[in-house]
Amino acid sequence: MNIAMIEDKIVPAEELEPVFLDRGIYFGDGVYEVVRSYNSKIFALEEHLQRLANSLAAIEITGVDIGLIRSRVQRAFDTAGISNAKIYFHITRGSSPRAHNWDADLKPNFFLTVMGLSDDTEAKTKGIAVSTYPDWRWKRCDIKSLNLLPNVLARRDAAKKGCDEAIFVDEAGFITEGAGSSFCAIFGQSLQTAPLTANILPSITRKFAIKAGKDIGLEPIEKSLTLKEVYEAKELFIAVTTKDIVPVVKFDGEPVGDGKPGKYTKLLMQKFRSFT
Amino acid sequence: MNIAMIEDKIVPAEELEPVFLDRGIYFGDGVYEVVRSYNSKIFALEEHLQRLANSLAAIEITGVDIGLIRSRVQRAFDTAGISNAKIYFHITRGSSPRAHNWDADLKPNFFLTVMGLSDDTEAKTKGIAVSTYPDWRWKRCDIKSLNLLPNVLARRDAAKKGCDEAIFVDEAGFITEGAGSSFCAIFGQSLQTAPLTANILPSITRKFAIKAGKDIGLEPIEKSLTLKEVYEAKELFIAVTTKDIVPVVKFDGEPVGDGKPGKYTKLLMQKFRSFT
Repeated sequence: MNIAMIEDKIVPAEELEPVFLDRGIYFGDGVYEVVRSYNSKIFALEEHLQRLANSLAAIEITGVDIGLIRSRVQRAFDTAGISNAKIYFHITRGSSPRAHNWDADLKPNFFLTVMGLSDDTEAKTKGIAVSTYPDWRWKRCDIKSLNLLPNVLARRDAAKKGCDEAIFVDEAGFITEGAGSSFCAIFGQSLQTAPLTANILPSITRKFAIKAGKDIGLEPIEKSLTLKEVYEAKELFIAVTTKDIVPVVKFDGEPVGDGKPGKYTKLLMQKFRSFT
Repeated sequence: MNIAMIEDKIVPAEELEPVFLDRGIYFGDGVYEVVRSYNSKIFALEEHLQRLANSLAAIEITGVDIGLIRSRVQRAFDTAGISNAKIYFHITRGSSPRAHNWDADLKPNFFLTVMGLSDDTEAKTKGIAVSTYPDWRWKRCDIKSLNLLPNVLARRDAAKKGCDEAIFVDEAGFITEGAGSSFCAIFGQSLQTAPLTANILPSITRKFAIKAGKDIGLEPIEKSLTLKEVYEAKELFIAVTTKDIVPVVKFDGEPVGDGKPGKYTKLLMQKFRSFT
């Protein structure tokens, strides 16, 4: 008899609830998005839904109605009634007994949470410390997939060093992005960040940060940063959905500029809020 | 109010069952093993438990009693009463609301299935076709983690080409391993396979295949194979827990040798069975 065991409990395999057969857990075979609201309004939902559609297509998860996802997200957000909310949702390929390949009729699974955002005042006013970590991720980080173990390990390493974010450095010595954020530097009148290649998530917040930069007179330069350049930068910041722009004031233990959030980063934060 | 949504159903977040908060699904934050039995006896369980312990240590999942895991595996196997069984089990870091970092008191989750093995007679007597796929995986494939999306996509590509397994080729043009197997070639009196570096799973079946090779007079060579070498090989095979040794008779559409399982591969299959 085919059986399953959950902790110490044995059950017939056919009695397992579908969630225990989710390909998300067996393979990380799914994609996700995080959106947030500002003052009861979800920000950039269409951009996130477009990226979700791109991620789904990239791993050949079919049969997902983006219109239905949009309405679910809005309904869940409305039900929660949290003005500054973090909305996480993932879609996995579906539930079936473990096998790498899948049947054409497999139905994707949807899961979502709406939670209140934690207060980010301190991070935004004082800035954060970051540390570097080798970029051991797979080569398709443009897909926002559930394969996030390298990100978890990187963030853990950062936490051990008293840092809030890990910044990935690839084998060639270039910075790619943060474990859960985009990474940007300001030099003179320019804003530099890595270009959107297959090893970079096409971050929505990065896009709006670049737009905010243009609005305040910073020329965008999409070119990978070296560690040497980072140490020469006037200002550094990360861009992440849940906190938009956050100043980086310490990089691998070294103060950035005078160790306080820089003037352009402050202007970017203000400008970004005007979009929301 | 913090809420969750499963398909169209909204529930208060605190009412979610722990399985919906499993870090396995959010991050692939867990490790797994597959063992099999031959004629009612589990093969190489100790080797698999040792590798499990190594994987757990590598990603800092602590508090797992390997003795308890051993007894669960044996009890589940005994309960299922399947003589030729495939036993899959994973351990994730635990269940908690989604955040990259984790609390020290998080309790790991255990999940296992015992299923009857499908008949492998045809694969073993006729051999299988394989196709190559770029090795886009992360850089710690020595850890048997739940981050398996690249393997899923590779196996899918193989299936589309009418092949049973995908063989990963890295950027330098070397073969690393299969999407779910080790890959080996036979030249004259030698058996060649990739060395156990950070991008290779330390396969138990590979170890016993090398031992079987020695027993029949094949010198083991642990050195990465190039595509050119593969096309010159007399015989090719994969090594995988569920089927031990399987002859490869077609590689990217080209027949291997005379397109039939080779004499050494047949001897290896016989010798391997003597270990079980």
